[in-house]
Amino acid sequence: MYKIVSIPGDGIGPEVVAGAVSVLKQLSKKHGFDVVIEEHPFGGASYDLHGEMLTSATLEACKKCDAVLLGAVGGPKWEKLPHEHKPEAALLKIRKELELFANLRPAKVYDALIDASSLKAEVVQGTDFLVFRELTGGIYFGQPRGFDENRGWNTMVYERYEVERIARLSFEAARKRKGKVISIDKANVLEVSQFWRNVVHEIHREYADVELSDMYVDNAAMQIVRNPKQFDVIVTSNLFGDILSDIAGMITGSLGMLPSASIGTTYALYEPIHGSAPDIAGRNIANPIATIASVAMMFEHSLNKPAIAREIEAAIEATLAAGLRTADIAAPGEKTVSTTEMTEAIVRHL
Amino acid sequence: MYKIVSIPGDGIGPEVVAGAVSVLKQLSKKHGFDVVIEEHPFGGASYDLHGEMLTSATLEACKKCDAVLLGAVGGPKWEKLPHEHKPEAALLKIRKELELFANLRPAKVYDALIDASSLKAEVVQGTDFLVFRELTGGIYFGQPRGFDENRGWNTMVYERYEVERIARLSFEAARKRKGKVISIDKANVLEVSQFWRNVVHEIHREYADVELSDMYVDNAAMQIVRNPKQFDVIVTSNLFGDILSDIAGMITGSLGMLPSASIGTTYALYEPIHGSAPDIAGRNIANPIATIASVAMMFEHSLNKPAIAREIEAAIEATLAAGLRTADIAAPGEKTVSTTEMTEAIVRHL
Ligand SMILES: CC(C)[C@H](C(=O)O)[C@@H](O)C(=O)O
Ligand SMILES: CC(C)[C@H](C(=O)O)[C@@H](O)C(=O)O
Repeated sequence: MYKIVSIPGDGIGPEVVAGAVSVLKQLSKKHGFDVVIEEHPFGGASYDLHGEMLTSATLEACKKCDAVLLGAVGGPKWEKLPHEHKPEAALLKIRKELELFANLRPAKVYDALIDASSLKAEVVQGTDFLVFRELTGGIYFGQPRGFDENRGWNTMVYERYEVERIARLSFEAARKRKGKVISIDKANVLEVSQFWRNVVHEIHREYADVELSDMYVDNAAMQIVRNPKQFDVIVTSNLFGDILSDIAGMITGSLGMLPSASIGTTYALYEPIHGSAPDIAGRNIANPIATIASVAMMFEHSLNKPAIAREIEAAIEATLAAGLRTADIAAPGEKTVSTTEMTEAIVRHL
Repeated sequence: MYKIVSIPGDGIGPEVVAGAVSVLKQLSKKHGFDVVIEEHPFGGASYDLHGEMLTSATLEACKKCDAVLLGAVGGPKWEKLPHEHKPEAALLKIRKELELFANLRPAKVYDALIDASSLKAEVVQGTDFLVFRELTGGIYFGQPRGFDENRGWNTMVYERYEVERIARLSFEAARKRKGKVISIDKANVLEVSQFWRNVVHEIHREYADVELSDMYVDNAAMQIVRNPKQFDVIVTSNLFGDILSDIAGMITGSLGMLPSASIGTTYALYEPIHGSAPDIAGRNIANPIATIASVAMMFEHSLNKPAIAREIEAAIEATLAAGLRTADIAAPGEKTVSTTEMTEAIVRHL
C-alpha cells in the first residue's frame, strides 16, 4: 500500500496531475498494489482558500506519506503579493521543511521530438545525463541576507555535511549509469567552491570506481550547449544547478516533457519541471507527460520499484512513437490530442 | 597620437597580439595618426621573469596609456601555484586596480561561420546582442569570504553606485542599437538581486526612450539557447555575466572570433574572449581575429573613432568572405591559413 499526497496546485497543475493519477490507478490495478491518494492545496490555490501558500496541514500531510506529487504553482494572480507570500517563497519553504536536499533532473532526449531542439539533431541525439542540484543550501538560504537603500547582500555558504550527502548521492547514481561524475563549481574565484570541490574529492575516495572530474560553471554552461553527450552525472550547488539544469532541459527540446525528483533522507517530492502555464490552463490541452514521467521517478526513488519506472517510460515512448502529440510538441500542421487523450493512450500502453 | 600598452601574455597570446599590432600599424599609416605601442609582461610570462603575475610596473604602465590590449594568460605551467599567485588572481587584480567595472561582450554571428554553431542555422542567424557584465563587484569581490575544515562562504553584495554606473552604460549603448535592455537577476530568491533590479529601474527613468525588462537568470540561460535573436542589450551582475556571456559566445559558433572590452571611467582593456590555448601555442596557427576585433572595440570605446572600428570589422568580414580560414574555423577538409597569413589578408583589406 502506497500513500501519495497529490498537490495539483495552480494553472495547468490540476490537469496534468489528474493524468498522473490515472497512471497510478492503472498501475495499482495491473500490479495489485493499493494506492491511496490524498489531495492537498498549495501555492495560489491554497492562498485563495486559506490566505497562505503553504499551510501546516499540507506540510504535515507531506510528512506522512510515501511521496508527494506536485503539479505546478504560481500565476499572475499572485504575482503582486509581498515577497514572503509569493509562490516562490512557499516552494523554498517546502523544500527546506521536508529537507529535500537533492534535486534530480534528467536531461534526456526523446528521439521522436528531436527536431524540437534549437540544437542540431546530431549534437543532441543520444543525450542522457542526470543533474544533481543541491536544493536546501547555498546562496538560496545563506545568512546574512537583505537590502536597504544603498546596498543588497546575500551569503553563499556550504557546510561540510551538505556537500557530503549530495556528493554521495551523485556517486551512487553514477554507479548505476556510466560511472562518470562531473562536479561543477567556480573554484578559481570562490572560496565556497574551493570548499565544495575539496569535500567532493574527499567523498570520492569511497567511490574509487567512479570517475570524477571538475568543471567551472561558465565552461559547463558552454559545454552543455556544445556537446551535451559528454555528460553522465553532474553534481552542483543550488544556484549553479538552477541555471545549468534549465539549460540541460532546454537543449533536449523536450522542456515540457521532463520530470524531476526532489529527495531527502526522509521525504520526497516529484514534479514536472515546466511551470503552471496560466495561459493554457483549464483547456485540456496541456501535456501530461512530464508529470507522468515524474511518477516514474517516484517508483524509482521512493517506492523502490525500478521495473515499474521502466514500464511507465516505455508507455510514454510507445505513445510518442504512435504519433500522439499534444499542442506543445506537435510540429506545425500536425494533428494534436488533448491532455486526457494523451493520458488515456499512455494508460492503454501500460 | 595614441599610446597603447600591449600585453601579449601566455600561450598563443604573443601571436594574436602581433596580428593586432600589425593592424594598428596599418591603420596609423592609412589615417596618418601616430601609435606608440609599449609592451609589458603579465601572467605566466611575468611570473617567470619577476616572480609576480602582475608587477607594479605593468600596472602603472596600464594607467598611463589610452588603452590596454591583452592577449591571453595562463597555462599548465602555472596551474599548481598557490591561489593568490595564479593567473586568475592577477586578472581579478588588474580589473579591480584599473576599475574596469563593465565588461562588454558582443554576441554576433558571422554568417560565413554559421555552420560552426551547435545550434540550428535558422536559430542563430542574425543574432547580434551585447552583454554588459558588471566586473568589479558582486560575489567576486564581496567580503567576508573564506573556508575552513567545515564550511566555505562568499558574499554577493552590490552597492548602489556599482549598479547605477553599469545600468547607465547599458542604456546608453541600447540607444545606439535597437533600444532594448534586459536586466538579468534572480530577484525571486536573492535580496541582492531585488536591490539590483530596483536600482536599474530607478536609472531607467533617465532613459525613458529605452525599453527595459527583467529576466531571471535561469530563464535567460535558456532563452539565449532557444531564441538568441530576442536580445539587444543584456545587463547583469559579475557571476551571472560570467556564465551568460560564455553561453552567448558559444551559441554564435564563433567563440574563437569574439572580442571583449573591459572599461571603467578612466582606463580600458581589450582582449579576445578565448584563452591562451597552450596546446597550439608557438605554431603560427592560432586565429588572430578575436584580438583584431578587440582593436575595433578599442577604436569604438577608447579612441572615439567608431568609423575606424567599422573599417576593421569590414576587413574581417571581407577576409572571411574571401574564404580564408584558420584551422579553428575551417570546415573538415577545407584549406587553412596561418596566423600571419590571416593577419596579412586583413591588413590588405584595410
Ligand atoms: C521559482 C524559483 C524559486 C525556483 C528556483 O530558483 O529554485 C525555480 O527556478 C526552480 O528551479 O525550481
Ligand atoms: C578566469 C576567471 C577568473 C574569469 C572570470 O570568471 O571572470 C573568466 O572566466 C572570465 O570570464 O574572464
